[in-house]
Amino acid sequence: MSTVSIRHLNTSTPDFEQAFHRVLHWSAETDHAIEERVAAILADVRQRGDAAVLEYTARFDGLEVDSMGALELTRDELKAAFEAITPAQRDALEAAARRVRAYHERQLQACGLSWQYRDEDGTLLGQKVTPLDRVGIYVPGGKAAYPSSVLMNAIPAHVAGVGEIIMVVPTPRGERNALVLAAAYVAGVSRAFTIGGAQAVGALAFGTTTVPRVDKITGPGNAYVASAKRRVFGQVGIDMIAGPSEILVLADGTTPPDWIAMDLFSQAEHDELAQSILLCPDAAYIDQVQAAIDRLIDGMPRRDVIRASLEGRGALILTQDMAQACAISNRIAPEHLEVSSSDPHRWEPLLRHAGAIFLGAYTSESLGDYCAGPNHVLPTSGTARFSSPLGVYDFQKRSSLIEVSEQGAQTLGLIAAELAYGEGLQAHARAAELRLKPADGSDGVTR
Amino acid sequence: MSTVSIRHLNTSTPDFEQAFHRVLHWSAETDHAIEERVAAILADVRQRGDAAVLEYTARFDGLEVDSMGALELTRDELKAAFEAITPAQRDALEAAARRVRAYHERQLQACGLSWQYRDEDGTLLGQKVTPLDRVGIYVPGGKAAYPSSVLMNAIPAHVAGVGEIIMVVPTPRGERNALVLAAAYVAGVSRAFTIGGAQAVGALAFGTTTVPRVDKITGPGNAYVASAKRRVFGQVGIDMIAGPSEILVLADGTTPPDWIAMDLFSQAEHDELAQSILLCPDAAYIDQVQAAIDRLIDGMPRRDVIRASLEGRGALILTQDMAQACAISNRIAPEHLEVSSSDPHRWEPLLRHAGAIFLGAYTSESLGDYCAGPNHVLPTSGTARFSSPLGVYDFQKRSSLIEVSEQGAQTLGLIAAELAYGEGLQAHARAAELRLKPADGSDGVTR
Repeated sequence: MSTVSIRHLNTSTPDFEQAFHRVLHWSAETDHAIEERVAAILADVRQRGDAAVLEYTARFDGLEVDSMGALELTRDELKAAFEAITPAQRDALEAAARRVRAYHERQLQACGLSWQYRDEDGTLLGQKVTPLDRVGIYVPGGKAAYPSSVLMNAIPAHVAGVGEIIMVVPTPRGERNALVLAAAYVAGVSRAFTIGGAQAVGALAFGTTTVPRVDKITGPGNAYVASAKRRVFGQVGIDMIAGPSEILVLADGTTPPDWIAMDLFSQAEHDELAQSILLCPDAAYIDQVQAAIDRLIDGMPRRDVIRASLEGRGALILTQDMAQACAISNRIAPEHLEVSSSDPHRWEPLLRHAGAIFLGAYTSESLGDYCAGPNHVLPTSGTARFSSPLGVYDFQKRSSLIEVSEQGAQTLGLIAAELAYGEGLQAHARAAELRLKPADGSDGVTR
Repeated sequence: MSTVSIRHLNTSTPDFEQAFHRVLHWSAETDHAIEERVAAILADVRQRGDAAVLEYTARFDGLEVDSMGALELTRDELKAAFEAITPAQRDALEAAARRVRAYHERQLQACGLSWQYRDEDGTLLGQKVTPLDRVGIYVPGGKAAYPSSVLMNAIPAHVAGVGEIIMVVPTPRGERNALVLAAAYVAGVSRAFTIGGAQAVGALAFGTTTVPRVDKITGPGNAYVASAKRRVFGQVGIDMIAGPSEILVLADGTTPPDWIAMDLFSQAEHDELAQSILLCPDAAYIDQVQAAIDRLIDGMPRRDVIRASLEGRGALILTQDMAQACAISNRIAPEHLEVSSSDPHRWEPLLRHAGAIFLGAYTSESLGDYCAGPNHVLPTSGTARFSSPLGVYDFQKRSSLIEVSEQGAQTLGLIAAELAYGEGLQAHARAAELRLKPADGSDGVTR
């Protein structure tokens, strides 16, 4: 048993605001050297295509091949990877995929369908919802290679009806992660390339002879990938740029303290910048959680990362009551929010900003990470104030539909012309007026 | 009558692809001088707040005042502006606002509501949809001051339930646009400041003593505003960065040619970079449209801008048939797409990418700009491949909801643990396993 020196704060002390501010402070410093190298790589890939991608893959991933063909993973290779993992792993991947698919199918029904109506003049109004033609999914290689992320990116795209899903995954020195390839097989990606970094983002955004140009790129990556995604935004769509992962636990003291300690660990083990925070109105319970942390830390294989994360960025915060804990949670707008309470539905309505809300003691965040069904790609660093989990809607776009009836054009034409003249846009006004029936009762059309 | 030298292309000629490529080519060159000035302004506003905003407003807008208070427009001032415009203008603004509101209320019902369900294990899954707390709306001042844009940005935010809507609008040398202020009154913005440029974007993104920090900034602006929005993205949400406006007309030859000519003008009059393209399988009809253009151009007050736009970026394209016209339209993914046909519903299903689709001869694009109901803030420059009109959904965000039942935790725990061990995340696995019931039939909780 060893003590983990995690910060203890108390909302009733005078220095709380200052200490709380220090806990929250995190900023992604822009590294100018990275920015410039990424700009150069993108420009090169745009101009030289496959040749540039081959060179950077040899240089950065230590993977030297003669042609882009050697960097494509065939469907047979993905299938072989699936068959090579253990039966338990195959079952788990397939069960997770099934649940993730079922949830996103509900999401499609709930908010992803076309709609239209006619107003009293017979004018048709609505929105047509269509899938993107082709998307690229970036999957990190190396130490943070997560097969679950393949499912979480590819399945919503599939459910949305995306025609082609192109996966890129770097394989440093040719090392392939069998579970990632198996997940690509289960999720049904259309094509996969063993490329990564800014060069992979560039290949997807601009297209090369071998890699098809996509309409949107999703998926996490390192600083080079994040910078490249930012730069190609506009050329293609991108999802959010992710910061370090975070968990906030609101506890009323009714959950076994070991469970809470392990949930805090599960976030902390991601990396040293990950953040785990507990908000609780029960001082004795906070002590029990601290004791559980101290008792359990040594049994964790990733204890060094967990300790660094908890001591660097973690906090156990004593609040006056659960309502105050909810108010503080709204200021943080966490990625993952556990409401570990015997009465979670009492607090849920008070929670306005969070990527995902996990209700009740049985809902460990890790169940959501893998297989509950909802997406595990969530807004970080307070961006839950204005953004949403990855979903079917990220792989669709909308077109407004308008069919103005002849009668509707008479009313709308007068309004539009008045406003257009007010804006000094006379052609707009005239275009509306041409659709008005003349007073002589003819149809106004000069043929 | 004067000839407008608009490009005529024919899909059947060998050089079509090359000529078509030249028509489409447009790229927003990044201006490094602007980039650096914007970065400096943002850093200064972040650090010095109101003082910096006051200085830049004096320097760039020629508007010198003693305090930020003098840069706030009171509700009374907005009301006075509304009362000072003509009754016809008041009626038109209110009628447009009513229709835009009605459409966006339908949108909220169709795709903006929370949803949830329970699976066979009693596990609750869903998404909670909530409005953003506070948004900023950028409204350009000067030559392109559009009251309709105030309605199109503020009303969806209102319908979404946004708590506070902060408008910023530069008033160079103190010149206020009465229609813009009146529109702000009709749309019900919460507060309004006469500031603009990168300094206004910075004030909204970081907050100052006077200007509250917002969660998202929407609305069009010049190169400085666009660059500033790109830079604060992540700190706050932003909408799309808009390029020049575009219209594509698919015509089967049944609409009066004057109507089509005026619709092309209405896009071209925005600015010289705006793009108007006609696709039509009827060569004689294209000649009629050209004749109408030549006949009507001299009567347009904005004829110089219209001519520059049509000659620089416009095109009349002869296609083999309407199906080919639809296929070319999908390659362009236009902002505005008119299907000027006697049978528009025959072609609509073939159209996959467009910001807004206007069906039938009576649906001039200008009706959609002002009052049909759908939003006029639309994806430009081919971004309709992956993005959507501004809508209620831009002022909402989603939180996943998960409540795993005790029984659900037994199944999900095994799947999650298997995958977590496979990813080397043992704390994730243990957190799931702690929720499993032990074989001895106890509840597994150590108290």
